[in-house]
Formats: sequence, structure tokens, C-alpha cells
Amino acid sequence: MAENRKKSGPGKPRASRAAPSLKKTKASPDVSPLAPDQFPSLRAIEGVEAITARTGERYKGRTDLTIFKLAPGTTVAGVFTKSATASSVVEWCRANLKKGKSPSARLLVVNAGNANAFTGKDGRDAVKAISTAAAQAYGCKQSEVFLASTGVIGEPLNYHKILPAFRLAPRPLTPAGWKKAASAIMTTDTYPKASTRQAEIDGVPVTISGITKGSGMIAPDMATMLGFIFTDAKVPAEILQGVLKSAVGGTFNAITVDSDTSTSDTVLLFATGKAGVAPGASAHFTGPGDRRLADFRARLHEVMEDLAHQIVRDGEGATKFITVRVKGGVTPASARKIAFSVANSPLVKTAVAGEDANWGRVVMAVGKAGEPADRDRLAISFGPHLLADKGIRHPDYDEAVVSDYMKGNEIEITVDVGLNKGEARVWTCDLTHGYISINADYRS
Amino acid sequence: MAENRKKSGPGKPRASRAAPSLKKTKASPDVSPLAPDQFPSLRAIEGVEAITARTGERYKGRTDLTIFKLAPGTTVAGVFTKSATASSVVEWCRANLKKGKSPSARLLVVNAGNANAFTGKDGRDAVKAISTAAAQAYGCKQSEVFLASTGVIGEPLNYHKILPAFRLAPRPLTPAGWKKAASAIMTTDTYPKASTRQAEIDGVPVTISGITKGSGMIAPDMATMLGFIFTDAKVPAEILQGVLKSAVGGTFNAITVDSDTSTSDTVLLFATGKAGVAPGASAHFTGPGDRRLADFRARLHEVMEDLAHQIVRDGEGATKFITVRVKGGVTPASARKIAFSVANSPLVKTAVAGEDANWGRVVMAVGKAGEPADRDRLAISFGPHLLADKGIRHPDYDEAVVSDYMKGNEIEITVDVGLNKGEARVWTCDLTHGYISINADYRS
Repeated sequence: MAENRKKSGPGKPRASRAAPSLKKTKASPDVSPLAPDQFPSLRAIEGVEAITARTGERYKGRTDLTIFKLAPGTTVAGVFTKSATASSVVEWCRANLKKGKSPSARLLVVNAGNANAFTGKDGRDAVKAISTAAAQAYGCKQSEVFLASTGVIGEPLNYHKILPAFRLAPRPLTPAGWKKAASAIMTTDTYPKASTRQAEIDGVPVTISGITKGSGMIAPDMATMLGFIFTDAKVPAEILQGVLKSAVGGTFNAITVDSDTSTSDTVLLFATGKAGVAPGASAHFTGPGDRRLADFRARLHEVMEDLAHQIVRDGEGATKFITVRVKGGVTPASARKIAFSVANSPLVKTAVAGEDANWGRVVMAVGKAGEPADRDRLAISFGPHLLADKGIRHPDYDEAVVSDYMKGNEIEITVDVGLNKGEARVWTCDLTHGYISINADYRS
Repeated sequence: MAENRKKSGPGKPRASRAAPSLKKTKASPDVSPLAPDQFPSLRAIEGVEAITARTGERYKGRTDLTIFKLAPGTTVAGVFTKSATASSVVEWCRANLKKGKSPSARLLVVNAGNANAFTGKDGRDAVKAISTAAAQAYGCKQSEVFLASTGVIGEPLNYHKILPAFRLAPRPLTPAGWKKAASAIMTTDTYPKASTRQAEIDGVPVTISGITKGSGMIAPDMATMLGFIFTDAKVPAEILQGVLKSAVGGTFNAITVDSDTSTSDTVLLFATGKAGVAPGASAHFTGPGDRRLADFRARLHEVMEDLAHQIVRDGEGATKFITVRVKGGVTPASARKIAFSVANSPLVKTAVAGEDANWGRVVMAVGKAGEPADRDRLAISFGPHLLADKGIRHPDYDEAVVSDYMKGNEIEITVDVGLNKGEARVWTCDLTHGYISINADYRS
């Protein structure tokens, strides 16, 4: 929804963040101070080709359309927003994933600038026109065309500007090509985001590479957070879906920028199968938890965690990256709820922005989570420093030392609930004047 | 928790808001621009006496202690924070209310500056010392002493500074006395808050007057929001409790300042009974819903709604008072959840701060509420202006007209979910640089 920021009514995105130059470096004042030093070098994945285009549908002078062409036999898995007002595009992808036992994908088309959300019948017409034209142009079934749209909400998508791009021929992805794709899907992001890992399945090396976009409102939202992950591993769709779903919980669904969780939006995982299978092995797995997939799962988790962190590091106005760990909860789910209560608390987030080790606000956030907690067993640490223990301020608490810790830009808050063994870890950023400026200062 | 703001670690409250001058007028830049024009004129309630004092426990140069003395036979009802980390004071009041079938109250002692929360055994010792001394000084049982503390969390309360005040003799309340009491319970509030109404029970006139405090973190919090309501009506405690509980839902529990609901804190209702009963009538009622109490309930609701609104109008950094109405929900509870999802959304609140009728963000907030909603039936209005209807932007939407409406400082957002008849109404304020400054800018 960050995309729905504009100078005057739903329509124009903020010029300064909405049309980022792709040449910006970390030194640029417009790039998040928490951005990684450089864009990672991603290599080609066999069976994945892509091309970017400038449609001019909304943004001028930048790429805004990315077409991924996938080899025949590519399997696909997806997780989406839980929003009751999901966009037509999300509905389209969901329907495609439900077709047949093992859904396959041949195309992924992503447009940035217009989310095609809350656009009624116009929106559904646009989805139909784009998927029909894409399927014809690239010779596949409509059910194999996956779509994602991100940008303003409530504006009809002028799909006629998008269709001409289907004359373009996608190409194997070079490192520069990956960066172009990661940049073309951006809206209010201040830097392109990607991650890559190598894994092994039965000794066969496979590559897992992903790109993502998201900055404000990392939330149960419409097409704000997009993540696309590609691999040459050979994994059936039903197994892929299970692997993706279990990886989302601790990665994309464990981040929050502005009080909402990212249980939403669109994450698609495509497996071209081009890496093949080991001699004598098969691509049949007992389930998503099959031990032969252990390394693949671990590396996929790393890619997704890295991408999720990059979204938080691009949080609107962020100056501090905050890890909230909760241990001692009655269950992992309870610990997670407490962790999000802390990570979503505006008072905790403003305290971190103010470099203030305000553990009283953490106590408050734990208390309001609605989960079992015992005031007199609670312990709270900021980084390695124990501030409060057994319900009172720790006698050794040295404010000067902790104040120094708070000046860093990576802050870890640990809460020990002291009741059982439930643990959780979530990530967020601080809440600053930058957030307000980005989201409220249109008319000033 | 707003009180836990300080320049250096939990300890010192912000000087500028924490020690408000009682002489400040609306013209002062430190008083909320949404403050009422003047403090209402409250008259004495028979059986209620009060006095304020300066203990110097934390605040210097201002009153910080209020002692209410209540006539024998005063009944009492209370609702409290649902926080799992509630303070010792809240536990004390809860225990007193559970004693006997019809709890009575003879004293209410409120200190501002220190919440006596998360203070472990020290906190319980302080509660014991204060209640013991107060009961001795004013000749009542400890179970008839009610306490409330508000201020910083995690700092031991130096109760020795409070005890000498129990030499003071409370006096019947003049209009000036009410204002002094409402001022002495303030922490970060920018103005004292009170409300009064006349009601009738069986034709007997009774008065209902209340004071409240609260500004930031109107939340399931510890002693941040306090509300004390007094009446000379003769109502048994068990009936009073039911009446209070049902009035809280649509008043103190229907407001939010910074993403948390006020299902918490402390609201106490005292009934001295000094108005007596009508000739031939009795103070026996069939239940909280007794028709004879209809006018009393209605006027009490008005007092509590007025006080609740005054808290929102003093929200940290607030420049707009926002009413969120939801109709067409599947149930009232569902409508309420959607209303809070809108009222708590940082993106909706920053949009209002920016005077931007960003209905796309309202769609987002409805969608993420986790409640039944149908995108294609949704209608959204800002004030009298219908912006979106049946899932798309309304064809008559005139941005210039709506932009003009957004310049006012009373904004009403109406969402029609279009599914059934569930309705709800909640109140909040906008999210501005002022909020960030108050909560993060300690070290700048």
C-alpha cells in the first residue's frame, strides 16, 4: 500500500521514491542507510529467461514491466495475501495453482506502478487481456501464465500499454539482467533486492535465486510485497508447495515494518528441473520434509530470510534494523505473538529510533500481547545487556553502557518470558520522522 | 507507557509534557489543538471530598497526588487493564473489588509520575504501606482504599514521600477543586479532562461527574489511562459493576491513539448514594439493565464517551480527530474489528495527517482485518463524500471537493462492508511528526 502514496489523492506515486534511479548507490541520501553494500552477483538459471520493458503505464523514464519465460516442465508453488480485498491478479494466480494436480508455469509477468486492485470488472478484464495476449505471444496455456501487479490501488490498469511488450524475446539472465529485473519490479523501494545460494539434491548441484520488492506497509496487503524465487532443481509442484509454505513462516511472514505482518502479498517459487536428477535417483520425494531435500530447504530458507531482511532494511524511514527474540513462551505460537507485539509497538519502535533502551515499553508490549506472561519471571535484554530480570530492573544495569549499544544500527531485543520453551524471532525497523514524511507530507 | 518517555533511560519523564502548567490555555503551543475550549464547570457531589498535594516523588513544582474521601456506604465498580504485566496497584484494586458481595470504597488515592509497575516486591511493599497508612489516617478498612498510579515503569516508588499527605483533610469539591484534581492526575496530558451530566432515577435527580487522564499509548497498558467517575446515585455495587462494564465497550474501549485499544488501565465508578431514593422506591434493581436505570445509563455513557473523546483529542501529536464508522459487517464484533483495523493503520492515520483522502489505504485496512468482507460490495465515504462504491472508485468522485473536506480537523471515515447489519464506531487521531518527536527525540 506504500504505493498508494501520492501528492494528491489516489493516483500519483511520490516522485522521489516511486521512480528510483537504478544507478543510486548507498551514498545517495535517497537509499536506505541499512541497504546492503552491493547487489549480489546472480548467475543464470537454466530454463529461466527474462526481459524488462518501459511501458509508460504509470512511471515515466524507468522500466516497469518484467517478463520471465520458463522452460516447459517448470513446476510452481505460491503463497498469497490473506486480505479479504485481494486483487484480481492474486485471484488469477490462486486459480492457476489450483488447476490440475501439479501446476506448471511458463510465464511470469510483473508490472510495477499499478496494483490493479479494487478495480472491479475493469481489473478482471485487464487480467484476461494480459494473460490471453501473453499466452498467444509465447505459445503456452493461459493457466501457465502467472501475473503480479504492484503500485497504486483503485486506478484502472491501462493494459493496452503493456501488451506491446509481448513482442520482446526474454533472454538468459546475466548478473546485470537479474539486477535489471529486480529494479523493474520496484515501486517505493530505494534499492533492488536479490539473493542466491547453491544447494545439493542427491549430490546434484542446484541454484536458488530470488528477487523481491517491498518497503512500506509490509502487511496483509495487496501486491505490496512481491517475491519471486527460481531454481533449476527438479521438484514436483505439490512438494514445492509444501517446502515454500514451511519456509515462509520464519522468513517473509516474520517481518513487519508498520504494524502489520507480511502474511500476504505474493511469493512464487518456480523450479525448472533443468538441473536434472542424480543417476539412479528420481524426482519422487516422500513429502516436503523428505531428508533428501534437507539442503535444498536450508538454502531456500537462507535466500528467503535474506530477501525478507532486505525488505525490512528498506522499511520506510528505517535507520535501525531490529531483531526481536522471544524465548520461554508457553508455545512457539505464543512466543511469536509476543514478538510481533513488541515489533509492532510504535512506542518500542520510536524508542529505538531515539536510541533509548526503554525496556519499560517492552514490558508493556509483552503485557498487551494477550499471551501468558508472568511479570515476576520476565527478563529483558538489549543486545548482550540484561536490563530487567525477575520482574525488576537488574541491579547491574549500567545505562551508559546500554546507551552506547543503542547507537548501533543493528539492535537485538530479547525477551525471556520464563514460562516454557516456546521461541520465536521476528524482524522490524525503527519508526522515525522519515516514515511520517514519506506517508503524510504530500500536501506540505 | 507514554509516561515512560525520558531523556536518558527509564527514569526521567519528558520535562516539557510531564510537568504541565495548570494555567496553560488552548492558545499555548503545548496544548493539543483539538482540546475543548474550556474546562467544564463541575459541582460538588455529596459524599465526595478531595484534596491535592505536591509530594515531589518525581515531579517538581506541581501537584501529583490526589486523595478522594468517600462517604460511608459508597459502592464501587471497576474495570482494569487486561495486560499480563499489570501493576501491583491494579492487582490491589482487583482484589478489593472481589472482597464481599458488595464492595465499598472510602478512599481513592492517585499518584502521578510513577506507575509503580514492574517493581516486583518493592511495588507490593509500597502498595501495602500506602493503603495501611491511608486506612489509619482516614479511619477505614484497607479493603476500602482504592489506589491508582501512573507514570514511569520500572522505577521503585518512593512511598515515604506520599505518606505525609495523609495528614491533609479532603474538602467538598468546588468547580476549582475538580479542575485541581483533574490536573493533579495528569502525566503527559496537555490539558485536564472532565465531564458531567445530570440524570434521574425514579424522578430523583443525581449527578454523574468524572475526570480522566491519558494521552499516548491509549492501550492495554499499565496505568496510562485512568478514569474516575463519581455519582451521588444510590446503586448497589453489583448493579454498578454491570452498568459500568456495558458502558466501557462503546466509550473507553472504543478509542485508540497508537495502534492499541484501551481495554485496559483503570476506570472506577463510585456511587455515594447521598441522593437517596424516591419515596416508596428502593435501591433494589432487577439488574444492570433495569428500566428504572435507563436515564442513569444514558447519561453515564455520555460522560464516559466525552472523557474518552478528550483522551483522543489529547493524543500525542494529534491534529485531527477521526471517527471511523463501519456498517454492513456480518456482526457488530466483526464491524468493530474492521473499524479498529482502519483506526490503527499507520498508513490511514498518516494519510489523514497529510489531508489526503486516500481511500486505497482504507481498502487495505479493511482487507487485512481478518473479517468477512467482499471487495466488490465495499463502499467508502469520507464525511458526506462517497469515494468508492461496489469495489471501484465512484464515478462522481471529485477530488477537489474531498480535499477541501480533509482540511477540517474532524474527519469521519465510513466503511459499508455491504454484507449484513453489524455496526461499530471507534475514534482515533492522526499520526504526525509530533508523535515521533514526543516519543523518539530524546537524544536529539
